[in-house]
Amino acid sequence: MSAPHLDRIRRATQEAGTRDLDALVVSPSPDLAYLTGYDPMPLERPTLLVLRPGSDPALLVPELERALAAASPVGEHVELVPWRDGADPYEAAASLLAGAARIAVADRLWASHLIGLQRSLPEASFSPGSPVIGRLRSVKDRAELDALRRAARAADETFRAIVTMSFQGRSEEAVANDLADLLVVNGHARSDFTIVASGPHAASPHHEPGGRTILPRDAVVMDFGGELGGYLSDTTRTVVVGEAPDGFEQAYAAVREAQAEAVDAVRPGVRAEEIDRAARAVIDAAGYGERFIHRTGHGIGLELHEPPYMVEGDRTVLEPGMTFSVEPGVYLEGRFGIRIEDIVAVTTDGVERLNRSARDLQVVT
Amino acid sequence: MSAPHLDRIRRATQEAGTRDLDALVVSPSPDLAYLTGYDPMPLERPTLLVLRPGSDPALLVPELERALAAASPVGEHVELVPWRDGADPYEAAASLLAGAARIAVADRLWASHLIGLQRSLPEASFSPGSPVIGRLRSVKDRAELDALRRAARAADETFRAIVTMSFQGRSEEAVANDLADLLVVNGHARSDFTIVASGPHAASPHHEPGGRTILPRDAVVMDFGGELGGYLSDTTRTVVVGEAPDGFEQAYAAVREAQAEAVDAVRPGVRAEEIDRAARAVIDAAGYGERFIHRTGHGIGLELHEPPYMVEGDRTVLEPGMTFSVEPGVYLEGRFGIRIEDIVAVTTDGVERLNRSARDLQVVT
Repeated sequence: MSAPHLDRIRRATQEAGTRDLDALVVSPSPDLAYLTGYDPMPLERPTLLVLRPGSDPALLVPELERALAAASPVGEHVELVPWRDGADPYEAAASLLAGAARIAVADRLWASHLIGLQRSLPEASFSPGSPVIGRLRSVKDRAELDALRRAARAADETFRAIVTMSFQGRSEEAVANDLADLLVVNGHARSDFTIVASGPHAASPHHEPGGRTILPRDAVVMDFGGELGGYLSDTTRTVVVGEAPDGFEQAYAAVREAQAEAVDAVRPGVRAEEIDRAARAVIDAAGYGERFIHRTGHGIGLELHEPPYMVEGDRTVLEPGMTFSVEPGVYLEGRFGIRIEDIVAVTTDGVERLNRSARDLQVVT
Repeated sequence: MSAPHLDRIRRATQEAGTRDLDALVVSPSPDLAYLTGYDPMPLERPTLLVLRPGSDPALLVPELERALAAASPVGEHVELVPWRDGADPYEAAASLLAGAARIAVADRLWASHLIGLQRSLPEASFSPGSPVIGRLRSVKDRAELDALRRAARAADETFRAIVTMSFQGRSEEAVANDLADLLVVNGHARSDFTIVASGPHAASPHHEPGGRTILPRDAVVMDFGGELGGYLSDTTRTVVVGEAPDGFEQAYAAVREAQAEAVDAVRPGVRAEEIDRAARAVIDAAGYGERFIHRTGHGIGLELHEPPYMVEGDRTVLEPGMTFSVEPGVYLEGRFGIRIEDIVAVTTDGVERLNRSARDLQVVT
């Protein structure tokens, strides 16, 4: 059971060495869950996995969670270093990090803990851990790909069900509740987010669904996902209530084509930023460039957003097993918004779409 | 609607000034929710509230969440500074922080964001924000106290219901699921945690409930809570299945008395660490001092654990309106564990117990 975790710890430690780091410090987060299978709540009491090239791994744990850590998949394979309430955990961490000059820390480590480490190790320099751990996590193994496929399929079934329900006259919140229920009915362990943005609200990409009543001729952006087997789903579709609003169809066609072009651009050897460029070229050409106000996509796995990012400046070279969203959008303030999002996986020679629900415009009632 | 938030922002800014800080930087977290009513998901894209004594508040937001932030309770009262995917958000933050030498940041700010700020502001020094914001948040107003009372009452009803159910022959997980359901049935918006630790597992304070079958003569520690009206509940009771295990009753009496003594010690003007000492004195005298392996309590409100902490070294002077847990415990490895936890509020002249379910030993079947 602990075999994949020990291998991941070994590879992360090696990657840290390759990058000339003296240590990698990982707090409770998807990074820790990935490396150890241990996933406690992040709290004010620091729990810190310390990986150092050439040394055995150690896990600093609050005394009251020692038994919990010992029972985890790596409990017998890492040295547990307990600290008691009232003691200084950063001094204990500093002993484990003695002599380390270059230290990478998990991106999600709390600032209060990083400041504690910086004060205990004033000579050391600290950098974010995502270039190290993200490199491992971004390439999914077969079991991870299967979990992501199952989660995507359950999200697709959710979309297929929601478009058979009525929209007009109901609130965004009511539709969002239906989406949350459908995610679970279709196999998710839990629903994590259910954006339902109707009419002018759809121009706000991360709109919080509220009491607005959905009207005829509204465009409705639905962006939803949850967790299934530890891995996440995330898909977006835009539908219209009856007849589309003025100017909608032309913009929808541009987003649809941009999404198709960007997915077609996915294959090993291409850089992440090129996927963004592929989507942006279509939307620019259609005249909506200024209204495509976000990047084209983000990695997904244990975390909703994780490396690599499909954005200008992310020069990650795509490899088989990488999974990420492709989700161009156009947002016209006061009028409507459009986004189409699928999760895709890089294959040995191209791309696999994990989401397969209809991208042709769906009309709801 | 925004009045309490603007007042909180004003007081936090003033408190920062009193502490000779040039700025307070707050990321999505209970701190941001408290100050602004805006509570987006913390993500790799930084959202940062910047408070500077003598200046108006500013909120750095990702462009795609600008409309969301504008619709928040403080959207019209803070300057929104959007940044676009692909741009450097830390450079944008550095402009808002120009000239700041001493900066406090929210404890939960991600390390990746703190490192970004440190690189953009190499001359500035950074400290945790909890001494500033925690001071405000620790003293609850009337509405907050009411919310905490309601949450505590719902947790008490949950305990009263669970002890009428059968334990023997069922798994820890099954009882934990019942607790989660009961928390919601009794009014919580969601269940957050349901520790059920039976027999020798009860010696692990943060035990993860699993498949172990609960047996006659087991002690069972149940520590559970959830959210109601934005505020949290957290209570612990220890029950026995039929006859108590050997040596249990003496230890239970010590924990029961320690908890009573510690609650009795609560009044304005007393230091937080004195509450810990009051509990520890009883348990030490009973001979279990080494087995009381955690602090006596933690503040609670929007967050499960927040300042002040009932631990040696926390010299916070208790004030009316402060709310925290009082939860001494004794853990005998391989045998059993005991913890009794109530949330209390400091009143003008003493203490109010928010949890009131039975602390006399309950025997379940």
